Amino acid sequence: MTTMDALFEGYRSRTAALKASDNPLAAGVAFIDGAFTPLAEARIPLMDQGFLHSDLTYDVPAVWDGRYFRLDDHLDRLERSCATLRLRPPMDRRTLRERLVEMVAISGIRDAYVEIIVTRGLKFVRETRPEDLVNSIYLLAMPYVWVMPPDMQRTGGSAVVTRTVRRTPPGAMDPTVKNLQWGDFVRGLLEAQDRGAVYPILGDGDGNVTEGSGFNVVLVKDGVIHTPRLGVLEGVTRRTVLEIARSKGWTAVVDQVPVNALYDCDELFFSTTAGGIMPVTELDGAPVGGGQVGPVTRAIWEAYWDLHHDPALSFAIDYA
Amino acid sequence: MTTMDALFEGYRSRTAALKASDNPLAAGVAFIDGAFTPLAEARIPLMDQGFLHSDLTYDVPAVWDGRYFRLDDHLDRLERSCATLRLRPPMDRRTLRERLVEMVAISGIRDAYVEIIVTRGLKFVRETRPEDLVNSIYLLAMPYVWVMPPDMQRTGGSAVVTRTVRRTPPGAMDPTVKNLQWGDFVRGLLEAQDRGAVYPILGDGDGNVTEGSGFNVVLVKDGVIHTPRLGVLEGVTRRTVLEIARSKGWTAVVDQVPVNALYDCDELFFSTTAGGIMPVTELDGAPVGGGQVGPVTRAIWEAYWDLHHDPALSFAIDYA
Repeated sequence: MTTMDALFEGYRSRTAALKASDNPLAAGVAFIDGAFTPLAEARIPLMDQGFLHSDLTYDVPAVWDGRYFRLDDHLDRLERSCATLRLRPPMDRRTLRERLVEMVAISGIRDAYVEIIVTRGLKFVRETRPEDLVNSIYLLAMPYVWVMPPDMQRTGGSAVVTRTVRRTPPGAMDPTVKNLQWGDFVRGLLEAQDRGAVYPILGDGDGNVTEGSGFNVVLVKDGVIHTPRLGVLEGVTRRTVLEIARSKGWTAVVDQVPVNALYDCDELFFSTTAGGIMPVTELDGAPVGGGQVGPVTRAIWEAYWDLHHDPALSFAIDYA
Repeated sequence: MTTMDALFEGYRSRTAALKASDNPLAAGVAFIDGAFTPLAEARIPLMDQGFLHSDLTYDVPAVWDGRYFRLDDHLDRLERSCATLRLRPPMDRRTLRERLVEMVAISGIRDAYVEIIVTRGLKFVRETRPEDLVNSIYLLAMPYVWVMPPDMQRTGGSAVVTRTVRRTPPGAMDPTVKNLQWGDFVRGLLEAQDRGAVYPILGDGDGNVTEGSGFNVVLVKDGVIHTPRLGVLEGVTRRTVLEIARSKGWTAVVDQVPVNALYDCDELFFSTTAGGIMPVTELDGAPVGGGQVGPVTRAIWEAYWDLHHDPALSFAIDYA
């Protein structure tokens, strides 16, 4: 069983080794226009529509302890997002998969945040039909990103339900198509900071929970797990949470979650590839449940990290 | 008085001269990291949060016949947008204004689309408080962009009221803060194409008109001008339209506009800095009013372009 102590200790020792490395890609690597480059030097065309109109989709798989986790699930979702936006990645799936493995291997990074971005390319859709456009792809890998730092995970983070901003509705932008149009999330992050907390939870404008800045929201009430069905990204980590819950025989309900349920739950956590299972023990300045990381959260946390060595969901990168 | 014939003829001759130029910046120029560069070669850091989370604001002034038009109105709006987003452009207003003039002057472009983009910079707001971040600024100028091509302006463009997408609500992203999160607009543009038209008009989800992909919507009914008050960018061109209307003694109402009013109006047009006054003569496949560019639209069109030589609203660039 993977305890927090064991997980963070292994991570710390691998990170120390990475920092001691003289590999110029150890701080991050990008793949642009057919070449690998140190991330800090990587540049994209100013005229890319991914910048000029945020006309893009992306996905974020992770590497943990030298193993890609659920890479094909991320690639499946990327393909669905591209299809919805009428984007065609200028790289077939097999090549993409090879580059993703190669990129992390040459960087030497054992615990990596990996991002795949597919943009419309250099021309705007008003001028040309999407099927006549050449899209662009950018890949990057950097040392693992913690949406919630390890030390905070031990006691849990603080969140607010935002009152100055709602989540963009699916009728405007489909949140199941992963996008970088984070205007609402950035407003939420600033509101959270202003209110002395770290994480925003956004409502849908009709009294229901959606998601936060890069994570799904999951609550536990009377032993039952609840997470919103609509207006949210269908997170790969959330899916893992649901699979873990069902494997343990727990009930997990994916349905509308009223905002008020957040104030009346026993446990609350967020899920994301960039940080895993993130316990939340303070909401709007008051303790959640008993104000401690709860037993269901902890069990899911441990099972989640255990799965990172399961060959059914992960594979080892050859760094040789 | 500036007729369409006169305006487009002058534009055509200046454009021909520009195309014959051997100035390497004549096709477009950017100002990045303190240096001017041909636009097609301009690149920005992959790690810029303006790309990675579309965390930015921008504005678009234009140059017509060698004169900046309402530049200070655009800079005023940019400053308001930056303040709302807690961005501080890393360039004071006087320097910015000088660079904008210099950039167009050295390019030799007489009719220019100019864009100023201020991004969060290289760090994400979750990690650092916004007041501790160094923001980035990018400038570009290119030959004038026509959201509606000149030839189409003579007979009017075709639009649809989108039925598959609504405008992002102000409670999620404030449309008065000019942003490049165009997911809803791109969906609208694709729907318009699919339905055999060019321009999408997005509703607010409650039966009211908002705006389209980069333009305000204005209709004329019984001699009165109507344009939506909320859920839209406060366009500088729209402001010019309202000023023209009032100077002619016409009534202009800025208020809620029900979507149904679009199907029952005498004239319809769009307004934007990148194209001016754009007549719309077909909506959802049916003619608008008489199906011709109407007299109010034409009078505003002519007055709009006349004002581009008014020294109260414009100033000449020294290309020497």
